[in-house]
Amino acid sequence: MEISLEQLCERAHKDRIRVGMLDAEVKNQTLMKAADALLAHEEEILKENEKDLERGRQNHMPAGLLDRLALNHDRILGMADGLRQIAALDDPIGEVISMKKRPNGLIIGKRRVPIGVIGIIYEARPNVTADAFGLCFKSGNCAILKGGSDAICSNKAVVAAMKEALCEMQIPEGALGLIESTDRETTNRFMKMKEYVDLLIPRGGAGLIRNVVDNATIPVIETGTGNCHIYVDQFADLDMAVSIIKNAKTQRIGVCNACESIVVHRAVAEEFLPMLYQALKEYDVKMRGDDSAVECLGADQPLVEKATEEDWGREYLDYILSVKVVDSIDEAIAHINKYNTSHSESIITKNYDVAQKFLDEVDSACVYVNASTRFSDGNEFGFGAEIGISTQKLHARGPMGLEALTSYKYVIYGNGQVRP
Amino acid sequence: MEISLEQLCERAHKDRIRVGMLDAEVKNQTLMKAADALLAHEEEILKENEKDLERGRQNHMPAGLLDRLALNHDRILGMADGLRQIAALDDPIGEVISMKKRPNGLIIGKRRVPIGVIGIIYEARPNVTADAFGLCFKSGNCAILKGGSDAICSNKAVVAAMKEALCEMQIPEGALGLIESTDRETTNRFMKMKEYVDLLIPRGGAGLIRNVVDNATIPVIETGTGNCHIYVDQFADLDMAVSIIKNAKTQRIGVCNACESIVVHRAVAEEFLPMLYQALKEYDVKMRGDDSAVECLGADQPLVEKATEEDWGREYLDYILSVKVVDSIDEAIAHINKYNTSHSESIITKNYDVAQKFLDEVDSACVYVNASTRFSDGNEFGFGAEIGISTQKLHARGPMGLEALTSYKYVIYGNGQVRP
Repeated sequence: MEISLEQLCERAHKDRIRVGMLDAEVKNQTLMKAADALLAHEEEILKENEKDLERGRQNHMPAGLLDRLALNHDRILGMADGLRQIAALDDPIGEVISMKKRPNGLIIGKRRVPIGVIGIIYEARPNVTADAFGLCFKSGNCAILKGGSDAICSNKAVVAAMKEALCEMQIPEGALGLIESTDRETTNRFMKMKEYVDLLIPRGGAGLIRNVVDNATIPVIETGTGNCHIYVDQFADLDMAVSIIKNAKTQRIGVCNACESIVVHRAVAEEFLPMLYQALKEYDVKMRGDDSAVECLGADQPLVEKATEEDWGREYLDYILSVKVVDSIDEAIAHINKYNTSHSESIITKNYDVAQKFLDEVDSACVYVNASTRFSDGNEFGFGAEIGISTQKLHARGPMGLEALTSYKYVIYGNGQVRP
Repeated sequence: MEISLEQLCERAHKDRIRVGMLDAEVKNQTLMKAADALLAHEEEILKENEKDLERGRQNHMPAGLLDRLALNHDRILGMADGLRQIAALDDPIGEVISMKKRPNGLIIGKRRVPIGVIGIIYEARPNVTADAFGLCFKSGNCAILKGGSDAICSNKAVVAAMKEALCEMQIPEGALGLIESTDRETTNRFMKMKEYVDLLIPRGGAGLIRNVVDNATIPVIETGTGNCHIYVDQFADLDMAVSIIKNAKTQRIGVCNACESIVVHRAVAEEFLPMLYQALKEYDVKMRGDDSAVECLGADQPLVEKATEEDWGREYLDYILSVKVVDSIDEAIAHINKYNTSHSESIITKNYDVAQKFLDEVDSACVYVNASTRFSDGNEFGFGAEIGISTQKLHARGPMGLEALTSYKYVIYGNGQVRP
């Protein structure tokens, strides 16, 4: 039953053409059946998940990671619902993006096609196993999954359940592969399987992403590191600024689109920062400011700290904010472009010119005026689903829906043309 | 005057925002002036080029490479014309690709923006220096050029001339950088300047591209390796097949979209292959066939040879063709998908179903029916210019015009929205 990494990748590569040509109807039925299979096998999946949890507890895994690893009835229901939602989305494959006739009579069309074989490398979160497969499959790609080794029993059970549906629908086996080996050496070899794998998407923390970028020879889309800034301009509605920062900082703390850093124009800092402090106090949000910010906040306030250079670039994923006071929009933009991770930034202002300048000059995937950075999300953008949020500029930027998992090919209709 | 690699990359990164915001009018004027400057400095450029040529001759550089390295009046005119043509193209930057209002009132627009800093690594062809800069600049990007060390004097002269125009137009210096150091270690460090450089495009032979892919941590677009196939179906117009293959093989021999391999349906092989042999004889095209092909061609014919396994995957760039006889369209497609480089393939047929199947199932950037593969080219596709032909599926596939050098950002207009 167990096959080697090479065989797994080669099988996916071989099957990519057939998987890429599946009709939307077949793909949708398969996803619905895979959802049913997850529910039908809930008992086994939870039993296997308990093995992972037990091992995690023995290895003193932190509570947050144990929580991400844990499955229960509601979470399996969530995974099944996720697959059903993906089934309900439009099939992106086959769309003719453009088509035109050239002077020599050649008709050149640009047709949306799958990427081929996509490798997803992620942490010990078994729900990603179903989600990543669903998105890759709906977009006509073969998925090779490498989940965190701490979730290996759970992942095997989830994949086994979904494979029943694939088998029933006679989907080529290469459509879904799970790398079962948990050693690092296998992962490193996987990242160099350029002959068979077209794209790697790492999903997880900065360390995981850095490791993939440094070692992969396969093209990578980097996702999910967010040191998101909100800039409170001198022309801001300060109440709106408080409301938006409070939302962006505290509505969900451990996510990449949460606000980590704020920048405040000096003209409003003295009035605004104490307002913000009051609003964030109930969440015990520590505020690490430069000298001016600390002065406005009050150095003796319990949650006020002095920022170090290192703070400006930090993605805290915690109840901490860095606070920088600036003299101008130019200084704000320069600070943001220096320290951000090109994820999401927002300006709070009522001034038209300042707003446009911010949108133009801040170099990020998502730039907002008067809204929370928490909206940087595939569902919120109307994509119906999301494989991650790209922080690079190549191929896909920002929230990635199904289209981000596609490429295109040129199809050219001739009648004997040769090049003069 | 000389600055370090790090300074060069950091300067480009810093200037990318200002370069990205230049008006089309300013960019066009700059390109026109750069074209003028090349002509005004023709004498110095030719003098510096002669130094490179002299060194090349002393080092016994092959004639083909010397020819690519050589500049003369016509070639400098060609470089200037190239820049003027780029000036005449539409500016891709700033286009709003889509925009919509979400139920919560957020207005989300997708705006085309430059990639930022693009590194081009190429061989000893000084004309690429002008061309690559022109395309990067028109699309709002900063270009860092690393040309083959054998052309270093020519490249310095070309860049110096163009920089006069940039200086006159007050373009930020980071818009154009040339890596003057010719040692390998510098190139290797360049490929890892991920903090400052957003994209690497290698232009050149398979060895150069492989080296960049293996060593870069910056995202790479692979270009230009073409083992292009033409499949002569049993329902082909055989005269058309001869005409197209003759064009694709011999019209220009050393280019990536030239035909290197043909596949012939057994039902027509006996009639067709001798026709093709006659047509290609005047060019002394060697035909390396499998057993069936050799039998149809005649083993005793002077240009007929037996193919080895290695032949199927070769990009000859020479007057040689591999010839495979197959029993079906499925076998043809399987052979092509196994050995091609995902560049361009063509089928010659009059049968509708077979044509559609070929377009669907052949996994290449450009798939043709009844036309020469030589049309895979930015100009022929109507893009007006070309930075290369991508053989990967990420970001850009096939001929890459100005749009391939752009990314996008989401600009989001709110009025106080927070995430519930």
